Amino acid sequence: MERVYLREVGLRDGLQMVKTDLSTERKIEWIEGAVAAGLTEMEVTSFVPPKTFPIFADAAKVAEFALTVPGLTPSALVLNLRGAADAFASGLRQVSYVLSASEAHSSANARRTSDEAAEEFERIVALRDNLGFKETVTLSCGVATAFGCSLQGYVDEDRVLDLAERVTAAGAAEVLIADTVGYGAPGQVERLFTRLRERLPAQPVAAHFHDTRGMGLANVAAALRAGVRRFDASIGGLGGCPFAPGATGNINFEDAAFMLEAEGFETGVDFDRLLALRRKVETWLPQERFTGAILRAGYKPPVLTA
Amino acid sequence: MERVYLREVGLRDGLQMVKTDLSTERKIEWIEGAVAAGLTEMEVTSFVPPKTFPIFADAAKVAEFALTVPGLTPSALVLNLRGAADAFASGLRQVSYVLSASEAHSSANARRTSDEAAEEFERIVALRDNLGFKETVTLSCGVATAFGCSLQGYVDEDRVLDLAERVTAAGAAEVLIADTVGYGAPGQVERLFTRLRERLPAQPVAAHFHDTRGMGLANVAAALRAGVRRFDASIGGLGGCPFAPGATGNINFEDAAFMLEAEGFETGVDFDRLLALRRKVETWLPQERFTGAILRAGYKPPVLTA
Repeated sequence: MERVYLREVGLRDGLQMVKTDLSTERKIEWIEGAVAAGLTEMEVTSFVPPKTFPIFADAAKVAEFALTVPGLTPSALVLNLRGAADAFASGLRQVSYVLSASEAHSSANARRTSDEAAEEFERIVALRDNLGFKETVTLSCGVATAFGCSLQGYVDEDRVLDLAERVTAAGAAEVLIADTVGYGAPGQVERLFTRLRERLPAQPVAAHFHDTRGMGLANVAAALRAGVRRFDASIGGLGGCPFAPGATGNINFEDAAFMLEAEGFETGVDFDRLLALRRKVETWLPQERFTGAILRAGYKPPVLTA
Repeated sequence: MERVYLREVGLRDGLQMVKTDLSTERKIEWIEGAVAAGLTEMEVTSFVPPKTFPIFADAAKVAEFALTVPGLTPSALVLNLRGAADAFASGLRQVSYVLSASEAHSSANARRTSDEAAEEFERIVALRDNLGFKETVTLSCGVATAFGCSLQGYVDEDRVLDLAERVTAAGAAEVLIADTVGYGAPGQVERLFTRLRERLPAQPVAAHFHDTRGMGLANVAAALRAGVRRFDASIGGLGGCPFAPGATGNINFEDAAFMLEAEGFETGVDFDRLLALRRKVETWLPQERFTGAILRAGYKPPVLTA
């Protein structure tokens, strides 16, 4: 069975808009539970200004713990050079940055044009290299609002590909294409990823979908057909972007993992443990909307053969 | 733009397991609201024993009304010859029958083997012809639990195709492949429909998915790629099968229509009116679980061009 990699982003994207604070101890319990359930990749925090995002004020502590967990490759999101400096100082070996293909979203989210945001990524790469981390720290670069934007509407596919090419040339070890507001439809998703892989055949690509309009798993299946083997998802479907009106949950980790197994891929997930963790996280964040079909249906392995 | 046909089955599949009775007046209001929202096909009731399914005791009345609505092609489900006789007497010109490819489900649902259920369909065709309705009444035949069964597990794809071929030969004007318990995964769905269309190139096919495991819309996208252009869905995602443990809602009509429009197809749906109807239906059935991303996200047309 071919392996597909799911990266849990609940501790980052999932916490951006929550109404309840979550202690460092519970974040640690979340990480431990996820790794016990077979997860190997997690975006565990974000290095952003604590005044704007108090929930990420413990970023360094969470990163420090995550680095001690055997079998886990933790990463963190940064939105600018300052955050990147903090992430590099934390000792993390995977750092994610994201720019937006929508000028309207880029302006609202980062107060930069998309080109200025790409320049910032180039500065982040330079900082990493100047700090002597070129061989030890990998940078992923996301292209957000890649399939449409709730602020400006249409987003040009060629612009997304150009930005992906630019950050690849700048040194991104992975390009993450993100449907920040859940506008992508399966045909569009398959086409963009197919073109991206033709244009950058050597570049690892990943997909980040939101389920805002119910198409999240359909888009995973579409990206899978285009050869994508790395996906972001969050436990319980938590998530949303504070600067993208109407942006709701990430694709649900449990359901995405089930579909991938039903498609014949290996995810490494222990569903009983994952669902136990999900139930626990739901009690920690009682004001949030959690999603999930597998939790409701009860986990039984996919019916693949007689 | 190519047209895709969505058949609303909330008044039939959606009501099979509801805990609240629904009056004939409200069913009529449902039909009127749906047609006002641009829907042209509805499975409006089921001719089944009123003792077992009291909610369908008004089947003849609902059918009588539906036949008066301009622009609507109403149909009804029957499970045996007796129900078919009642459906023919109602004046409906489209009657649906369903058999199950899973022997365990067939036995629980219809107390027949799959072959006996196919024989029953042959008797229904003969009855229709003997009543002189051959030219005026079309019969659709569904093959249920086509992608797996919560009672027996695996269901053989060749068996599904054989049954589809048999009921086609018997006179079915359409074969409906149904994922009664939501086990189908996109790759499996695309493969089965591709094989079905190769084997029965002249036979119209339709797809009926449940969202039990979150894969409903992914499966619509997969069937769409295999050339399917007719789908069942229910307003608010209502639905379930009383004889299939764990079977939950049909795919959500609003979300399916949105995805199809985002894929560049025409559905004829007026979303504002459809969502207004859905809100109303939800107040009528307060004990049921309704689903729907488009309702929550708020309807804005798909972003297809600049």
